[in-house]
Amino acid sequence: MRKQVLSLLLLALTGCATPKASFGAPTLGKDALATQIGEKPTPTSPPTGQQWLYGSAEGSIASAQVYKSMAQFVRAQALNRSAKMQVVLAEGSTPDTPRFESCGAKPLAAVFDADETLIWNVGAMRYMAEQGKDFDPFIWNAWEKSGAGKALAMPGAIEALKIMRDAGVTVIANTNRSAANAKGTEDALRMAGLGEFKHQETLYLMGDDAMGSSKDGRRAAIAAKYCIIALGGDQLGDFAQAFNMKSLSVADRRKLATHPAIANLWGNGWFLFSNPVYGPSIRGSYDEIFTSETKWAPAQ
Amino acid sequence: MRKQVLSLLLLALTGCATPKASFGAPTLGKDALATQIGEKPTPTSPPTGQQWLYGSAEGSIASAQVYKSMAQFVRAQALNRSAKMQVVLAEGSTPDTPRFESCGAKPLAAVFDADETLIWNVGAMRYMAEQGKDFDPFIWNAWEKSGAGKALAMPGAIEALKIMRDAGVTVIANTNRSAANAKGTEDALRMAGLGEFKHQETLYLMGDDAMGSSKDGRRAAIAAKYCIIALGGDQLGDFAQAFNMKSLSVADRRKLATHPAIANLWGNGWFLFSNPVYGPSIRGSYDEIFTSETKWAPAQ
Repeated sequence: MRKQVLSLLLLALTGCATPKASFGAPTLGKDALATQIGEKPTPTSPPTGQQWLYGSAEGSIASAQVYKSMAQFVRAQALNRSAKMQVVLAEGSTPDTPRFESCGAKPLAAVFDADETLIWNVGAMRYMAEQGKDFDPFIWNAWEKSGAGKALAMPGAIEALKIMRDAGVTVIANTNRSAANAKGTEDALRMAGLGEFKHQETLYLMGDDAMGSSKDGRRAAIAAKYCIIALGGDQLGDFAQAFNMKSLSVADRRKLATHPAIANLWGNGWFLFSNPVYGPSIRGSYDEIFTSETKWAPAQ
Repeated sequence: MRKQVLSLLLLALTGCATPKASFGAPTLGKDALATQIGEKPTPTSPPTGQQWLYGSAEGSIASAQVYKSMAQFVRAQALNRSAKMQVVLAEGSTPDTPRFESCGAKPLAAVFDADETLIWNVGAMRYMAEQGKDFDPFIWNAWEKSGAGKALAMPGAIEALKIMRDAGVTVIANTNRSAANAKGTEDALRMAGLGEFKHQETLYLMGDDAMGSSKDGRRAAIAAKYCIIALGGDQLGDFAQAFNMKSLSVADRRKLATHPAIANLWGNGWFLFSNPVYGPSIRGSYDEIFTSETKWAPAQ
């Protein structure tokens, strides 16, 4: 996630960091670390997206609902002995013309993003928000190294992973945290109660290959050893890098992600977790978010 | 929803309405209608929650995923001839000590909230945001009367309602839109492609009884005629009014909503749709949203 966050948390959080300050006395962030993105007045309460995701009953239930249906799906797949296909797009195929390879006799696996999919980064998110910052890559790097014990398992995750592992499915994380901080991430996942993840066996990180923040190569590496029957993530890049093409407009990205050729995978092999706090989902002008056909004004 | 919106859209949208203005030239709202909540500089792009919900692929997929699993659940219940229980809390019972009545021979029904559950209020949401307003009850009232054709069916809703109706299940809306605007809401639902909803038969509105914005009485009235096998909504009040007790802290509300006595209902009779834009979910200070156990700071 790190690279995405660097370029996108800005879009995501600028929307909410400032106005709360107008309810309180703004003070500048004071941490000693360098900031690559400008500082902001300290908000007196978290951004609305963080209130919904990390604090509300609705945010917790939304996560638990997805984990419940994902666990049911994975367990049913594991009990069903029929031949399986990978749910990862075959190399060179695209969401609008997908190909999927057969699994042969490979052992089953479920592959998850880490940040805001397996764990809530509440320690770092609170710290950066209280500092009035959208995102600080130095703070984030410190979080990857030392955040273990301060990150929370997402609601429903611990129960769902137990069901999957009990069904004989290997649980693997594929995250854009840095390979340089592998131990910190292994510790964060274990201390959140999610069990053991081992770098290059059940934990794939940015830097494991030369493809940067694209997870396609790591997915291919996992699919070479396992039959991936389910993918879980909060960003479309957790399913296929094609969704991150810079050339895609907001509408085209939505259209591609719901293309009839893959639409049936959502909730049925591909499982999306709601994250209204950061990521490529948080962008767009009024004309990009709303269509002209639905423009309305009250009668004067 | 109306009353909730009046008291809560404020909390929801203040977080995002102002800062975007700092990216553009703020101008005051100009609509001729009275405003009960103060105006704001016009933001140059929608609040982040609206970007995620109404514009992003992720927001659309989150809705479609819930509708897909809800349709599967309702269809399976309809095909299963065994005796059913209402999924509505029996009168006088609470989420922590729930009772559910048996359905006897009543016909099956699925009950939905309307706003941000069956339909996206994109016309009014864009208009109010562009006016720099959190919420304006006069504009909202005009929207209930004249918004038909400018509201969109939520992703997955049309397909899911067809599956439910084809399975012999009656689809009913229970919304806090005003009974005085019944025709406008009937028209909005029909013109969004969701089919026919008839006031006091398949459409229950605020003002149908003396309980104001509490939907408990309307749920009881529906349960007197139907076997309610599923509830869908974006706010906990769509499931039980007990979740709206003013005395509940953010943490207590989350605890009550995930109490072991009802936790299994989520995704299994009770279906929640993600709405990070407005509602009782959008509230809380840093100390209310984050626990002290997860407080973290980078090493200095």
